[in-house]
Amino acid sequence: MERIHITYAFLGENPAAIADLIRAEQTIEFPIELAPTWIQDEVVGKVEEITSSDKNNHLITISYNPDVTGGELTQLLNVLWGNASLFPGVKIVDLKLPDSILNNFKGPRFGISGLRKIFKADTRPLIATALKPMGSDAKTLAEMARTLALAGFDLIKDDHSLANQPWATWRERVTLITAAVKEANEVTGGNCAYIPSLNMPFDQVIDAAHTAKDLGAGGLLVLPGITGFDSLRVIAEDDTLALPILGHPAMLGSLVIPKEVGINHGIVFGTLMRLAGADISIFPNIGGRFSFTADQCLEIADLSRGVLGSLKPITIAPAGGMTLERIPEMIDMYGKDTALLIGGALSRGHLADNAARMCELVRSY
Amino acid sequence: MERIHITYAFLGENPAAIADLIRAEQTIEFPIELAPTWIQDEVVGKVEEITSSDKNNHLITISYNPDVTGGELTQLLNVLWGNASLFPGVKIVDLKLPDSILNNFKGPRFGISGLRKIFKADTRPLIATALKPMGSDAKTLAEMARTLALAGFDLIKDDHSLANQPWATWRERVTLITAAVKEANEVTGGNCAYIPSLNMPFDQVIDAAHTAKDLGAGGLLVLPGITGFDSLRVIAEDDTLALPILGHPAMLGSLVIPKEVGINHGIVFGTLMRLAGADISIFPNIGGRFSFTADQCLEIADLSRGVLGSLKPITIAPAGGMTLERIPEMIDMYGKDTALLIGGALSRGHLADNAARMCELVRSY
Repeated sequence: MERIHITYAFLGENPAAIADLIRAEQTIEFPIELAPTWIQDEVVGKVEEITSSDKNNHLITISYNPDVTGGELTQLLNVLWGNASLFPGVKIVDLKLPDSILNNFKGPRFGISGLRKIFKADTRPLIATALKPMGSDAKTLAEMARTLALAGFDLIKDDHSLANQPWATWRERVTLITAAVKEANEVTGGNCAYIPSLNMPFDQVIDAAHTAKDLGAGGLLVLPGITGFDSLRVIAEDDTLALPILGHPAMLGSLVIPKEVGINHGIVFGTLMRLAGADISIFPNIGGRFSFTADQCLEIADLSRGVLGSLKPITIAPAGGMTLERIPEMIDMYGKDTALLIGGALSRGHLADNAARMCELVRSY
Repeated sequence: MERIHITYAFLGENPAAIADLIRAEQTIEFPIELAPTWIQDEVVGKVEEITSSDKNNHLITISYNPDVTGGELTQLLNVLWGNASLFPGVKIVDLKLPDSILNNFKGPRFGISGLRKIFKADTRPLIATALKPMGSDAKTLAEMARTLALAGFDLIKDDHSLANQPWATWRERVTLITAAVKEANEVTGGNCAYIPSLNMPFDQVIDAAHTAKDLGAGGLLVLPGITGFDSLRVIAEDDTLALPILGHPAMLGSLVIPKEVGINHGIVFGTLMRLAGADISIFPNIGGRFSFTADQCLEIADLSRGVLGSLKPITIAPAGGMTLERIPEMIDMYGKDTALLIGGALSRGHLADNAARMCELVRSY
């Protein structure tokens, strides 16, 4: 396969007409018949197949010349979903990328196997949590992090809503928490990673990533729905950082939640996160505060782990209102190449006890 | 008003329960009852009002302490729609920002009045077009730009899909087109602006903006759905650039197209574009290739022009398959504080003739 293949589910009549609209809209944005013949042949997308299950339900596959992306993730996203996002009834359900595209991307630096080495977790799931609630001062969050690190957590991330609020500014928070986690690691001999959030102004993200690294952060949290998938890619590819990257779903719900439009869950939280370079893709698990179905969650798992050129498989982190009681079920559902991310539930009762119980549960399962 | 007020349309039963979910999810992401009392009072959102038109249709207004945004657009977006994007049945239909938030933003540098000065267009609509189709080489695009500039266009933008493709790389394209437009301006004595696209890698955007300015670009096109709203803000606020900014809707369709989830059209293409600093907000007009309704388009016009703290009103550019025949109707619908953006239709027949006709039509209307 030498071309990009995108399959769209289309809800409506006359799939051939919308197919023609899409193949032009995502490339030349120009009346096809007015373009030079070679542009019609080589630049405009080609309708490869249309199958219809009834008058209103169709699958349209269009292939694109990889050159239309110019080898850049930003333009690949534009070809994928730029103006197509403005059509009603169009949903991307499959994406196949040729090696000529995939070879442009380094993808995740660590992936499942790299994270297993960092956290000395040969076969077990990774143990992860989030620092919260917003409003806590930096000292309180640092003591919380110390407790969790001493209990044996692998990954302690900022709650995704922690930015630069007056109660705990980014710099103070990252300084105190990295110090607390470092001290805890000296006690345990472990390698717990604190992962600060990089949801911050466009012109501060890269400097902040380096500051976090210098202070001792063990990973970085990126919100590509807000700062862009390419911010994640640049951070992941930076050899002077070389830290595990966690991708968070904030604002990406709009791509996946609508049934009739958008992009399939697996493509967004599996393929795109992985292409950009996330080592861990966080998404809302079934039965939590959100609404993903089991099939949607398993599609994310499949596309996070299946073959995608030579890009490493990545760890999934199903989350969003998980509890200790659900750990066995989550391991049964997703297997052990998973980060179990439990946040608020650890604070119900005694944090240190709950943290110790979670670590024991996972390590002994 | 000292707090942020967000009104959500909720489709489903038990609006009080979802209101409690949202007010916590968008702030502390933590069981409310486990948080210290002061955090419950000061950090968690407050339900201000719930009105129900029937069992399944509700309007929920929640107010937020401005401090939860930390004064940053990235975290304001997160409070607005971060994890709320993952709930089914929730749509933001109103957003009111207090001065303490608005004062953090410079907003558009030029806005309607500033653009009128630049283009010496005291009362008429601005005349705008796009260079296409992709596949054309840089010389061809430059000659097209020359023709359009000689005809009297104010704004000639890159097609939003022009990135760094092999047929016309960004650098070569911007170099040749700025030169052609400059030469045309010397002939006409006019001030036509060429506006290259900045849909490019995260770590190249700012440098490219400066390169474009140095080469003589008269404005910059930003795709905040791909590079992030905060990329637009940083470019707009840069005093060493000081160029008009055009905001393009690519990928933002997912926020507005679904009926039952997302964010209203006016908030995305009016309020957010303006807050970030776009001088011109491009969106798909009724009756083109896309699907916005007249009400949705007029809501964008209202929120682009109405009071928003001391932020300047901005020019709207209804577009997407417009033709010369529609110019009178568009001026009637939107008034003259509008940029009339016609692209592909100018190439149907003789470009120079069509371009001259469009300029004459607008200037004489």
